[in-house]
Amino acid sequence: MEIIECVPNFSEGRRRPVVDALAATVSGVEGVTLLNVQLDADHNRSVLTFVGAPEPVLTAAMAAVRKAAELIDMETHQGSHPRIGATDVVPFVPVAGADIGRCIDLANQLGAMIADELKIPVYLYGAAARTPGRASLADIRRGQYEVLKSEIALPERCPDYGLPRMHPSAGATVVGARLPMVAYNVYLQNASLKLARSIARRVRERNDGLPRVQAIGLEVETGEVQVSMNLLDTDQTSIWRAFCEVATLAREAGAQAVRSEIVGLVTMQAVAGALGEAIACPELSSGLILETHLLGAARGKPE
Amino acid sequence: MEIIECVPNFSEGRRRPVVDALAATVSGVEGVTLLNVQLDADHNRSVLTFVGAPEPVLTAAMAAVRKAAELIDMETHQGSHPRIGATDVVPFVPVAGADIGRCIDLANQLGAMIADELKIPVYLYGAAARTPGRASLADIRRGQYEVLKSEIALPERCPDYGLPRMHPSAGATVVGARLPMVAYNVYLQNASLKLARSIARRVRERNDGLPRVQAIGLEVETGEVQVSMNLLDTDQTSIWRAFCEVATLAREAGAQAVRSEIVGLVTMQAVAGALGEAIACPELSSGLILETHLLGAARGKPE
Repeated sequence: MEIIECVPNFSEGRRRPVVDALAATVSGVEGVTLLNVQLDADHNRSVLTFVGAPEPVLTAAMAAVRKAAELIDMETHQGSHPRIGATDVVPFVPVAGADIGRCIDLANQLGAMIADELKIPVYLYGAAARTPGRASLADIRRGQYEVLKSEIALPERCPDYGLPRMHPSAGATVVGARLPMVAYNVYLQNASLKLARSIARRVRERNDGLPRVQAIGLEVETGEVQVSMNLLDTDQTSIWRAFCEVATLAREAGAQAVRSEIVGLVTMQAVAGALGEAIACPELSSGLILETHLLGAARGKPE
Repeated sequence: MEIIECVPNFSEGRRRPVVDALAATVSGVEGVTLLNVQLDADHNRSVLTFVGAPEPVLTAAMAAVRKAAELIDMETHQGSHPRIGATDVVPFVPVAGADIGRCIDLANQLGAMIADELKIPVYLYGAAARTPGRASLADIRRGQYEVLKSEIALPERCPDYGLPRMHPSAGATVVGARLPMVAYNVYLQNASLKLARSIARRVRERNDGLPRVQAIGLEVETGEVQVSMNLLDTDQTSIWRAFCEVATLAREAGAQAVRSEIVGLVTMQAVAGALGEAIACPELSSGLILETHLLGAARGKPE
């Protein structure tokens, strides 16, 4: 049984009814389980997490993108997180019994459907990227919605599906495939936005920081500043190590890492591996967790 | 659907074929899933973990106790962990859809069966204890097998099931009910056994240490010393807090906590809660973990 996870990010994190409508399109598809709905008012962004077999997951993703194009207007959108479209990014993730190749196929199918039906230009990223310059979301989102409007006609910013013309309200969308990753934010106290940005620069892989880590410094609406990271491969950089690195750099600058948050859902392996590192217990993996075995037993049952 | 976990501890951690034979009696019972088999040569002790509905779990537990009485002789047993019998302790733990009352019933049923059929005296502990003095395993095991042989005739050491007479080779057995707990060992470097014992004394709940923590200091066969703990309620004292407390006390005495180990299986909630404490992320619970929802979806399906 192949199980695919899909984690679309939408440019709406304040109007609850809009996000509820997006969630309803997903949970209305048979064979799909909607696992989580997360709203972030500061980022003005929401994240749905759903799983299922490849076919229904593709159907649900398309339904949500269609609904977002109907309800979200990028011309009036503001938020602290970079974005280029109403549906900003749609990653397909292999969860159980599926591989990344399957997810690349789904990304291409969805990209073609979005461009054909909705006339929204689509960029392929991650493992679905066609050139190395599009592997990273940050590169595709450069300048965000506002700048991309004028640059989309440039050859180097030409979309992978659809015409090089922004949708007038829904903007553009990024679709791709990736391994399970963790969106992870660490909040700082007694820190300026400048310090958060400087710490983000130092922990990023791009600057010889932590392996497979992307990071930006942000100020959220409450005035707190945070280092907002994507941990692309928690076997290489765990949640624990990311926290410690930010906390250490903050401390050296007279600030403190006071709390942290995980956006969306996280795999048991990522949590177990991180705790194992924190308590010097390298054997701690999902295999030591009771529920892993209950899940194995439940799956193995004839239906 | 009620699911009960049973985690019997046997006084054999070196002869693999003996432990395999115990495991085979359990996995031979229909409706029971054997999740884990763990041998500890230093403790000369093994732990089986299995789950299932109450009835088959009771049958499997009795089968294993019967086999252990056949294969293990306490007259020749040596190991660094306290013990009073071939089957040393059999805890029943409510895992899903079951409550502790159900586990107390099972403990009483098993206790009566062991005493009647095998003539092994049985003590009830934990939530199944009939007097407060028997809630804790340490009190029941006082003086271990060797001392209990002579003290069992004393009124205060009279078993709850069976005659006050040790079984000539299988000794006595403790049976009970408890909430999920974590058996957790922290290894020290540059530390004497005396230091490990002193740290154990300081972290124990009994001495106003950590809430719901039992602890002893041990020297294992390799010469390493460890603080061996039972975390009886990880909502009150998490794995992370236990590690930190031992590490801090070690450091103050010029020693180091160099690694740690979890014996048997651990619940996702205990792992998620511990990491949440370590990274200042109080929202981190099993609800944020992808597999929790997959498990919910798998359980909810019609069969």
